[in-house]
Amino acid sequence: MDDAELIALLGEGAHGYFAGGAGDELTLRDNEASWSRIRLSPQVLVDVSSRDASVTVLGQRLPHPVVVAPMAYQRHAHEDGESGTARAAAATDSTFVLSSQSTTSIADVAAAAPDARRWFQLYVFKDRQVSLDLVAQAREHGYEALVVTVDFPVGGWRERDRRTGFSVTHPLAINPTGESMTTSELFAMHDPSLTWDDIGEFTDAAGMPLLLKGILRPDDAERAVDVGAAGIVVSNHGGRQLDTVLSGADALPPVVDAVAGRADVLVDGGIRRGWDVAKALCLGADAVLVGRPVLWGLAQNGQAGAEAVLTQLHDELDTTLALLGCPNARDLDASFLTR
Amino acid sequence: MDDAELIALLGEGAHGYFAGGAGDELTLRDNEASWSRIRLSPQVLVDVSSRDASVTVLGQRLPHPVVVAPMAYQRHAHEDGESGTARAAAATDSTFVLSSQSTTSIADVAAAAPDARRWFQLYVFKDRQVSLDLVAQAREHGYEALVVTVDFPVGGWRERDRRTGFSVTHPLAINPTGESMTTSELFAMHDPSLTWDDIGEFTDAAGMPLLLKGILRPDDAERAVDVGAAGIVVSNHGGRQLDTVLSGADALPPVVDAVAGRADVLVDGGIRRGWDVAKALCLGADAVLVGRPVLWGLAQNGQAGAEAVLTQLHDELDTTLALLGCPNARDLDASFLTR
Amino acid sequence: MDDAELIALLGEGAHGYFAGGAGDELTLRDNEASWSRIRLSPQVLVDVSSRDASVTVLGQRLPHPVVVAPMAYQRHAHEDGESGTARAAAATDSTFVLSSQSTTSIADVAAAAPDARRWFQLYVFKDRQVSLDLVAQAREHGYEALVVTVDFPVGGWRERDRRTGFSVTHPLAINPTGESMTTSELFAMHDPSLTWDDIGEFTDAAGMPLLLKGILRPDDAERAVDVGAAGIVVSNHGGRQLDTVLSGADALPPVVDAVAGRADVLVDGGIRRGWDVAKALCLGADAVLVGRPVLWGLAQNGQAGAEAVLTQLHDELDTTLALLGCPNARDLDASFLTR
Amino acid sequence: MDDAELIALLGEGAHGYFAGGAGDELTLRDNEASWSRIRLSPQVLVDVSSRDASVTVLGQRLPHPVVVAPMAYQRHAHEDGESGTARAAAATDSTFVLSSQSTTSIADVAAAAPDARRWFQLYVFKDRQVSLDLVAQAREHGYEALVVTVDFPVGGWRERDRRTGFSVTHPLAINPTGESMTTSELFAMHDPSLTWDDIGEFTDAAGMPLLLKGILRPDDAERAVDVGAAGIVVSNHGGRQLDTVLSGADALPPVVDAVAGRADVLVDGGIRRGWDVAKALCLGADAVLVGRPVLWGLAQNGQAGAEAVLTQLHDELDTTLALLGCPNARDLDASFLTR
Ligand SMILES: Cc1cc2nc3c(=O)[nH]c(=O)nc-3n(C[C@H](O)[C@H](O)[C@H](O)COP(=O)(O)O)c2cc1C
Ligand SMILES: Cc1cc2nc3c(=O)[nH]c(=O)nc-3n(C[C@H](O)[C@H](O)[C@H](O)COP(=O)(O)O)c2cc1C
Ligand SMILES: Cc1cc2nc3c(=O)[nH]c(=O)nc-3n(C[C@H](O)[C@H](O)[C@H](O)COP(=O)(O)O)c2cc1C
Ligand SMILES: Cc1cc2nc3c(=O)[nH]c(=O)nc-3n(C[C@H](O)[C@H](O)[C@H](O)COP(=O)(O)O)c2cc1C
Repeated sequence: MDDAELIALLGEGAHGYFAGGAGDELTLRDNEASWSRIRLSPQVLVDVSSRDASVTVLGQRLPHPVVVAPMAYQRHAHEDGESGTARAAAATDSTFVLSSQSTTSIADVAAAAPDARRWFQLYVFKDRQVSLDLVAQAREHGYEALVVTVDFPVGGWRERDRRTGFSVTHPLAINPTGESMTTSELFAMHDPSLTWDDIGEFTDAAGMPLLLKGILRPDDAERAVDVGAAGIVVSNHGGRQLDTVLSGADALPPVVDAVAGRADVLVDGGIRRGWDVAKALCLGADAVLVGRPVLWGLAQNGQAGAEAVLTQLHDELDTTLALLGCPNARDLDASFLTR
Repeated sequence: MDDAELIALLGEGAHGYFAGGAGDELTLRDNEASWSRIRLSPQVLVDVSSRDASVTVLGQRLPHPVVVAPMAYQRHAHEDGESGTARAAAATDSTFVLSSQSTTSIADVAAAAPDARRWFQLYVFKDRQVSLDLVAQAREHGYEALVVTVDFPVGGWRERDRRTGFSVTHPLAINPTGESMTTSELFAMHDPSLTWDDIGEFTDAAGMPLLLKGILRPDDAERAVDVGAAGIVVSNHGGRQLDTVLSGADALPPVVDAVAGRADVLVDGGIRRGWDVAKALCLGADAVLVGRPVLWGLAQNGQAGAEAVLTQLHDELDTTLALLGCPNARDLDASFLTR
Repeated sequence: MDDAELIALLGEGAHGYFAGGAGDELTLRDNEASWSRIRLSPQVLVDVSSRDASVTVLGQRLPHPVVVAPMAYQRHAHEDGESGTARAAAATDSTFVLSSQSTTSIADVAAAAPDARRWFQLYVFKDRQVSLDLVAQAREHGYEALVVTVDFPVGGWRERDRRTGFSVTHPLAINPTGESMTTSELFAMHDPSLTWDDIGEFTDAAGMPLLLKGILRPDDAERAVDVGAAGIVVSNHGGRQLDTVLSGADALPPVVDAVAGRADVLVDGGIRRGWDVAKALCLGADAVLVGRPVLWGLAQNGQAGAEAVLTQLHDELDTTLALLGCPNARDLDASFLTR
Repeated sequence: MDDAELIALLGEGAHGYFAGGAGDELTLRDNEASWSRIRLSPQVLVDVSSRDASVTVLGQRLPHPVVVAPMAYQRHAHEDGESGTARAAAATDSTFVLSSQSTTSIADVAAAAPDARRWFQLYVFKDRQVSLDLVAQAREHGYEALVVTVDFPVGGWRERDRRTGFSVTHPLAINPTGESMTTSELFAMHDPSLTWDDIGEFTDAAGMPLLLKGILRPDDAERAVDVGAAGIVVSNHGGRQLDTVLSGADALPPVVDAVAGRADVLVDGGIRRGWDVAKALCLGADAVLVGRPVLWGLAQNGQAGAEAVLTQLHDELDTTLALLGCPNARDLDASFLTR
């Protein structure tokens, strides 16, 4: 499906919200381009008759390193919404991250996809109790990790939303009535005063491993380790917050160096192909998050569409492991890249 | 508004004069591209609930670092002309620089925008008395700094003007009757024999801090400090003078090093977004000048249009400070850039 | 002929199979671009009245360094098929490599082009006997070298074939009945468990010099020397296997260094012009393989078309030797490149 | 005039011959791009009220550094032909170089433009006497330097001419009857066996300073000095001989270093603007040759058109000297370039 078809399907407002990035969308494009620029250097004559894409994240073995990124308002993509995506993740053995801005309740997603490995993404709102309630629900309904997003003190500068005036009309945990709210109204609920000192409160409340999502600098990665994060997601929020920030691919290596194995490092932004996933692992990531591609799958064909996208990613990764001559994903390292 | 609409609005002549650059307009394009190429490296979990964009320039605290660049013949953009732009600057707490080639008198602009922080830009003409008279008027009418433009010994090679034969039909200080004059006739009045030795005369006449605008080399920046300039504007005149000169963004860092705090350093050329402003500050600039965007705002909607452009720039800068995790503009430094 | 004409001629299926590459075809394009990026530095006032493009490969003098790459299913390009290409090679004194996936039998090609310098390309199938039989036939019918392709443990990720569902309808050695098989069915016959230890079996069976095709890394090149390969073909399989692997041109120099003359080094991928051939030799290659251009010649005009393409390549190389001031191809070295 | 208009004017054949380059025309485009990539770093507050573009070449003061490159078959561009161009050169104080492949005789050009500073470009033909006769005529008719072109042992690979079959129908010194000859027939007359040892014969015959045109390497430049050349023209023949050779701009600096003042260094290829001329001088060239732009001027409007082009180049150079703050062309050096 090309842009025009997606717009016809979703309307300009939702499409713009999903597809768009901050400012002139330079980082949005650079996210994809940075992975493409990296060149692979495959090895031959290795027995690749059986491949194993599994990785260990948060001490747990995952069958493969693809995690579905938290994405807001999925019912605006398709009525299957977050439940459809979660079921698609379950069907493909992917990890699913539910957004704080979900258009399906924490309980309903859990009920719809009880077998899915589910994590919960947390936004810290000005009204802290709202956030703490979300954590409590996530805990109650078997979510296994808390992903605290730290790159959203204020809303990004998104011109498509300004143009379309996109507003969310489905009920949300933070807007249970579902009265129409623009994204900037919703963004205004985020707490811009959040600091490192506040993280402890959520680690305590979570009772599950905590990851910090939205880190791009090695010094911040070290502080994350210091405050007890079990993992870090190197991310520029899909190019949606501040335009011209560096890409996840470019930010990753220094963060891996700084963390030095003391926490898991995940990365996202612009990962579109199984070989992008492999490159992230070669650069030291433990797993990756994939956002928009899953959303486009959902938009086109609900749960089945999201599933097809995830299946293709896994197949591409499997092919990549074979053609790199590296049958085990955990053996991917910088020797498979040039220079 | 796109180019075609602006041409319809302004006519080819004025549009070409405003939009155009020298030669093949490579520097014109490179000006914007150089800012875009720089990558930001944001910090997270800093309390950014209140942001402060203020900077200190010429010993004075400015609420934010955006200065409206001196631009000639603004009545050809809109009947509000320089008064409209000055009032827009006042309304947005921006600094306004009036061009020597203003289509509104120094006195009238002062009367129209008494509260605006106004600086006066000086061209030194062959007939020095014309220039000295301008300085005297600026002094009399409360302009607070003198910006002597030094990159205009002769007119740039502007092919759009050659093609359209654009001529100025509004009265000017240096052509009070308003009889139609082409830009090359007007440019011929500039004094190509101006040297460092002549600057003292204007420092004396000014009775206000003097900035030299149009410097691109560190050695020239040092001489500017030596002759007593309070500030320097790193500028290639918006790509309008000599094509393929280096961009302001590329010229800035060596100049900052050479000046070493002995004068204020401003920069212009291709700054289009609040994050470009932030990058300039990260590279050591104290403030920035913004040209064409303000002019397009004026062209579209007079004072209100210029105001909208300036407001958006400030909002973008505010968002940038929040998303960089650097709530105070004065703390921006190279640590927020990658490599 | 442009793409549209070729599609009209061949149908989308065969055209997509021939023209296409893996994934987003970034490596496919980079293959050509990498040769184009290299800059030549010609010498003047050398007597170039007679030029000699001959090289020594596998101990044998070849009149020029152009080898026709093994390419599958050539009857889908033109009814002349592999026999036409082999005759074109003979007519132009080129070396011809017959693919394991030939739509003409080993014997028939030998009969059709008895004078052609013929090599045989081997795929090692899960059913090893199929491969050993191919080797025996090649030996029997006067093929002079065995090119074992090692970059095909599994099929590449080729989206054009997925889209068109291209299937092979001509009889093949490994599908003698010619019942329609898709490429992925055919690819599934390849043996993904092949390792360095298995190469000896084919060296023994061959009774002719063995080359390993599909090597991109210096460490693999050294192992190839260690297992007794007489030659190496630096190749990413025309960008058809794993997208974003490095180009042949970029992979070549480190391989040449690692091999250090202990085996012949050939290279392919994106060589389109006689000056590309010369550049490969400047970088240390002993000869080059050329793929698609020959196929397009065949598609357009059968044997004569392939011949025309090869003749042009030789003429371009001859002109290059003259204009580089290097009349003997064996004297080409890095001094004819800049930096 | 754009390409379509020029084609309408000249026909595909002549237009293709004039505009075209070798192969895929990558060097043709790179020639222009290399000058454009170089960034200028202007100086301010220098008295530039009078500019002097003069340079010293072959011991003679030239009012400015622009030389009209030797170009064949100018009557195919306009009936004014070489005489028109020579008169345009005289009118603009430019130096004119007459090609060996002139469609106007050496004597007639001299008669038409007696005041023009005229040099003669020599091709050495298989029949050496033809070349020696040309030299004798040049000497007799007051040509002041002999430019021996050394990058043409054989014709370049020019696909436009192959396609159009362009043939020359005007009388030439080497084809006095004017019977139609294709460029490849004409090129076949060049002597590919010419070496350094043969240069002496022409130095002796010339009785005027000799320049070698078509040198790109520092080692060849040194040999040129050794055989007594008074000057060198760094040139890739306008991208018409071997595609993907390095550009004149890129070749120039190492040649300047190697020559170290022992001969004059000129450069050509892609110089389109006065600031390109200045850049060449900054990089150490003593003068530049300009080809196609003059030809397009001639094609459009005969002598007057060529004159207009040369006048614009001089005006642009004059403006460049003013805006670089370097009023004397002889003071241009690398300090006016960045990095
Ligand atoms: C439509 C959309 C909504 C998003 N909503 C959230 C969110 O609610 N919480 C969050 O942490 N990240 C959110 N993100 C960011 C993603 O989690 C992820 O970082 C990003 O999409 C990865 O880039 P990609 O889309 O290029 O794969 C959202 C992204 C998109 C595209
Ligand atoms: C239409 C126009 C007129 C200008 N007139 C003047 C002027 O009179 N004096 C001056 O010093 N600079 C003048 N400039 C240059 C600007 O002050 C400034 O350096 C430049 O516009 C900054 O680049 P930007 O337009 O890309 O922001 C002019 C620029 C434009 C676009
Ligand atoms: C249509 C097609 C079929 C191919 N089939 C084979 C094959 O059967 N065996 C093999 O080793 N390589 C095969 N290749 C790869 C070529 O031998 C060669 O490596 C590649 O085409 C070189 O790149 P080029 O096409 O850009 O010149 C094939 C390539 C193409 C284009
Ligand atoms: C149509 C044409 C004809 C040429 N003929 C000759 C020639 O007869 N002798 C020669 O030495 N160079 C010849 N040249 C090369 C030019 O002298 C010069 O090196 C080149 O044109 C410079 O590049 P430019 O056209 O980009 O300025 C010719 C170039 C062109 C475009």
